Amino acid sequence: MPEPIATFAEMRRMLAVLPGPDVAARDAALARERLLTKPTGSLGRLEPVAAWLAAWQGRHPPDVRRPRTAVFAANHGVARHGVSAYPAAVTAEMVRNFAAGGAAVNQLCTTVDADLRVYELDLDHPTADMTEGPAMTEEACARAMAYGMMAVEPGIDLLAVGEMGIANTTAAAALSLALFGGAAADWVGPGTGVAGTALAAKKAAVERAVAVNRAAMADPFAVLRCVGGFELAAIVGAVMAARLARTPVLLDGYASTAAASVLFALDPGALDHCLVGHRSTEPGHGRLLTRLGQEPLLDLGMRLGEGSGATLAIAVVRAAAACHAGMATFAEAGVSGRT
Amino acid sequence: MPEPIATFAEMRRMLAVLPGPDVAARDAALARERLLTKPTGSLGRLEPVAAWLAAWQGRHPPDVRRPRTAVFAANHGVARHGVSAYPAAVTAEMVRNFAAGGAAVNQLCTTVDADLRVYELDLDHPTADMTEGPAMTEEACARAMAYGMMAVEPGIDLLAVGEMGIANTTAAAALSLALFGGAAADWVGPGTGVAGTALAAKKAAVERAVAVNRAAMADPFAVLRCVGGFELAAIVGAVMAARLARTPVLLDGYASTAAASVLFALDPGALDHCLVGHRSTEPGHGRLLTRLGQEPLLDLGMRLGEGSGATLAIAVVRAAAACHAGMATFAEAGVSGRT
Repeated sequence: MPEPIATFAEMRRMLAVLPGPDVAARDAALARERLLTKPTGSLGRLEPVAAWLAAWQGRHPPDVRRPRTAVFAANHGVARHGVSAYPAAVTAEMVRNFAAGGAAVNQLCTTVDADLRVYELDLDHPTADMTEGPAMTEEACARAMAYGMMAVEPGIDLLAVGEMGIANTTAAAALSLALFGGAAADWVGPGTGVAGTALAAKKAAVERAVAVNRAAMADPFAVLRCVGGFELAAIVGAVMAARLARTPVLLDGYASTAAASVLFALDPGALDHCLVGHRSTEPGHGRLLTRLGQEPLLDLGMRLGEGSGATLAIAVVRAAAACHAGMATFAEAGVSGRT
Repeated sequence: MPEPIATFAEMRRMLAVLPGPDVAARDAALARERLLTKPTGSLGRLEPVAAWLAAWQGRHPPDVRRPRTAVFAANHGVARHGVSAYPAAVTAEMVRNFAAGGAAVNQLCTTVDADLRVYELDLDHPTADMTEGPAMTEEACARAMAYGMMAVEPGIDLLAVGEMGIANTTAAAALSLALFGGAAADWVGPGTGVAGTALAAKKAAVERAVAVNRAAMADPFAVLRCVGGFELAAIVGAVMAARLARTPVLLDGYASTAAASVLFALDPGALDHCLVGHRSTEPGHGRLLTRLGQEPLLDLGMRLGEGSGATLAIAVVRAAAACHAGMATFAEAGVSGRT
């Protein structure tokens, strides 16, 4: 039987039926929070994070027992323009490093006790060069989205999404520019560490990609296929599938947040089940966060991608759930209330 | 045999022989960091944290296998002035809650797999009212410091310090004002959540405590005994003992950072083995951090004390150590370097 052909029309149908928060679970979390043995609000961000987790897991108390980090890897035709400090071969080399347990995300998953899955998207076949036309056909883009949906399996209770793809901050900048406007310089940053002529080449590539594809980018999914990438499309699929499966999501840095922005542009509520794990030093990330109304959980100056920031933030979400579920109430502990 | 009498003179002798960083371990960390499979600097703060850990554990690679959270609890005579939103009985009630596993710090220690120890300092006997004279005698203060030193046992490789003590943000404000100057209003904040007349009473108590004890506060240890508290003195001892035992320290919020500031005032290098786990929303904490040149690892809007922020930050330090020790080098993984 031939592989079913995924289409944007299917993706739009899915987007139209995304479930909302579980209001009862969220209200139960808010009610319990007020009873716990601490001054109201004194756990800061951990308190709304617990309520968010309940709302999007659809249960109270919420729990983080089976978190997963999903790293999507792909190559980019635009890499030929020298937009990265590293050769395109590094994408596949790093995928082997993930498999061997040698990358940062491996250590971080061990530290936070998360399951790590790496999804390769045809590394031998990069996207087309977006400076010359669409990076992907609709079919290839939709198939990458459908592939990304596989990362959401039953029982996973928190999903951190990340990526590996040499040149993908170029794609992230082009996506951001096409979705939100402004100038290329607003969205282009050093990525793996380019400067000078390489940074200028990156900016020129982003400008040209958006100009060349302008007529074809009639809606956000079209933007994704024209100036995105396979791993970014997969992230879009994973974020949608997570919403359908009641699995809250932690976005990582610039590339994964830019991918998720495609959904935000289609429906500003489509990312309500997502938090951003970490604020990247890539300047475009800060701009995206403002657009999305997101405040990351961590700000440690990281800019690695591969799901590193989202994975480390699992520790914060787990802490929020643990405090919420495990703390005694004032009545249970016999602790006096306010005078 | 009678309990040996601790003195400030002994404490000063100890302070004079605090060891410096292990430069060889730190240099080994810096050298290895450059070889790991990531763009240089892309792990942000995790990179210097790994070097800091190596320097102060005195070994390379550094490791976090046996972290401990030490919570020191005591009562304060100044509580009688209505400076807290909670009655003084809550200190002992919360210590029982710690023992029963019902507090936030219990859940956080479980989450980050840290050993939790709670040290009570004679809860039935608060310090004297600092608005009328010194809160402690020199002997009682030095004994509390010596008691705090017990938290540093062999094998502990990272120490998070916290406190529980109704009215101790009043003591923290008085310590800060006496050590660093300014106005009481610069250092007094809502603590557990006071406002209006209670906040005014808190500010008045701090002003009066510093004015009344001015002549007796000839040096930072004298400041500690006059306007500190037993749990704050214990933290000073624990921080010193950790330095001697090559155990890096994570400070928590306002009260623990104010206590540690006593050592900073005596020797600006005395806290080089300490990082601050979390930025409290208590406004005085931000001012102290500026004075100490510290940038906390986390900023989650917490203001609970009991070691909560420092404990959660153990996850970050452990992640830094894990990435540093466990990642492959470019050569080991066969990953290409920069073009």
